[in-house]
Amino acid sequence: MFQVKVLNQKVLEEVLEMPMVIEAIEQVYILKAEDKTTLFPMVFHEFNPGVADMDIKSGHLKGADIFGLKLVSWYGDNKDKGLPLLIGTTMIFDAKTGVPLAILNADHITGMRTGAAGAIGAKYLAKKDSKTMLMVGTGHIAQFEIAATLYAMPSIDKVIVHDPMSAETTHSYIKTIAQKLKDNFAITKQITFEAGTDLEAAVKSSHVIITATPSRQAMILKDWVQPGTHISCVGADMEGKQEIDEKLFKGNIVVVDDIHQAINVGETEKAYKTGIITENDIYSEMGDIILGRKPGRTSDDDITIFDTTGIALQDLMTSKIALELAKEKQLGITIDL
Amino acid sequence: MFQVKVLNQKVLEEVLEMPMVIEAIEQVYILKAEDKTTLFPMVFHEFNPGVADMDIKSGHLKGADIFGLKLVSWYGDNKDKGLPLLIGTTMIFDAKTGVPLAILNADHITGMRTGAAGAIGAKYLAKKDSKTMLMVGTGHIAQFEIAATLYAMPSIDKVIVHDPMSAETTHSYIKTIAQKLKDNFAITKQITFEAGTDLEAAVKSSHVIITATPSRQAMILKDWVQPGTHISCVGADMEGKQEIDEKLFKGNIVVVDDIHQAINVGETEKAYKTGIITENDIYSEMGDIILGRKPGRTSDDDITIFDTTGIALQDLMTSKIALELAKEKQLGITIDL
Repeated sequence: MFQVKVLNQKVLEEVLEMPMVIEAIEQVYILKAEDKTTLFPMVFHEFNPGVADMDIKSGHLKGADIFGLKLVSWYGDNKDKGLPLLIGTTMIFDAKTGVPLAILNADHITGMRTGAAGAIGAKYLAKKDSKTMLMVGTGHIAQFEIAATLYAMPSIDKVIVHDPMSAETTHSYIKTIAQKLKDNFAITKQITFEAGTDLEAAVKSSHVIITATPSRQAMILKDWVQPGTHISCVGADMEGKQEIDEKLFKGNIVVVDDIHQAINVGETEKAYKTGIITENDIYSEMGDIILGRKPGRTSDDDITIFDTTGIALQDLMTSKIALELAKEKQLGITIDL
Repeated sequence: MFQVKVLNQKVLEEVLEMPMVIEAIEQVYILKAEDKTTLFPMVFHEFNPGVADMDIKSGHLKGADIFGLKLVSWYGDNKDKGLPLLIGTTMIFDAKTGVPLAILNADHITGMRTGAAGAIGAKYLAKKDSKTMLMVGTGHIAQFEIAATLYAMPSIDKVIVHDPMSAETTHSYIKTIAQKLKDNFAITKQITFEAGTDLEAAVKSSHVIITATPSRQAMILKDWVQPGTHISCVGADMEGKQEIDEKLFKGNIVVVDDIHQAINVGETEKAYKTGIITENDIYSEMGDIILGRKPGRTSDDDITIFDTTGIALQDLMTSKIALELAKEKQLGITIDL
């Protein structure tokens, strides 16, 4: 029998802090660039198309001696049952022995690592003196994106929020976000929050844009995007999803988390499949930028795009640091499996 | 947060009894024949070829409202570290909501369901009055095969055991097996155990043969197998594994657990890939035999073969009944995930 740690949502909220997750996700990109990771093929099954599905994402972080998986199910009608639509569970294993190390609720980790990924795009590709951030989307993930970007880009002092479905939601969101950032992420810095109900105007006045919506068509048009802007595209993680004009991919600096995923299920998919760009037009994966193998932005006028589809390796690394912290702080329970 | 049951090895040994597992595995074959199951694609990764690997097998038992996965790792050098070579963990989920139901040590379940599968082959395909069983292989799985077959075929009163590597192991195995069957499976019936050091002679005098070895070449030759014999091939579950003469597949009744797995990684692989049989020569999957859609054995002279490669659905169903029993008996622990 093995001693396995169980970390639930509450423990994970207690131990994980955004700055360390940003660091962990940067480390994942570096290990990936150094060929010290393997992504295993994804398993995807639709129980009922458009109503319920599940996927199993797994991989090996050779550079961190763990492997593991995240199983996420989505049941569109769970709301009626008082249950979350998305439910995720992660397991990590010791890659030297195969011994199970921990079982974790995947929800909070997914939020943290997804926020960190969008922010890393801004940190390495946006102009250093960026002041204004635009958050497109007001779903569960938005506060993670805002929090992570505020940590990663200390120059930002204004956040415009835009809900693509409802001006009302935009207005109510900005009333509560400062308190959420304080309570959930210990962000106390004075930030101006603004309702960006006119998306075109919001795009034109922002230096950093993060999109995190379930959109299936471009919301941000090419002509709106000013020279010098950075966009982190977070929402597209399945075939057919799209948030920004595919024409933006032509001639601009496109960085991705994983080329294979980006062209198949990411924001890059549309531009790639319609022939606007080829695989060779993708500038780089993120790890090469962090390692300085490629320069990223070269002028204040470049438009940069980071397409982050989300990779299991991020969940595994974040799970690993959560496990170490929980052990230190003696949190979570230990089971004999 | 969700209340999830954790069932470790000890609890599973306490709640699972072989007759109910045989019934559960028959139910899996029936659901499969009725198109009430889906096997998801297997994920397989070699960390170090021939030294360490892992696989994730998953699927949906629509007919039993669960889905889930089993992750099994194999580390060939774990013995030196005092750890088991094979380590497995299973998770099952409610297929109506995606909510995690249980996390289980997979080891005992794998033994039970694998034993049950071999025995079901004998139950439905062997001659009803079979008296003598030959067990080829003395590894961990052998006692499960013997126990299950004794439950499924009450006519058997003699068990010949053959270890293909060592006559010494054969002799020591038959000294302890009666006690193991009593302690672990509550089998108290008087059985004659015999050391079958001469495999040809053992094959010729047996009505039911079960092979469960890691062999990569035929041990049992075509000419040795007498009319009326049934063989359940349990060992072959990976490309290149083989236990019986591929020529036995020509003209005899071949039943499999899953046609796709059988021709790719099962005992059937060699006969299929060398062109001795085509897919059409496979008589049936097991569920159709149990349901009576096909007659199985039609004469006392037929030679029958059951190729069981092992499918995740067996683990999921066995996990489900273990969960129900553990709840009833208030065993196992419950965690908030």
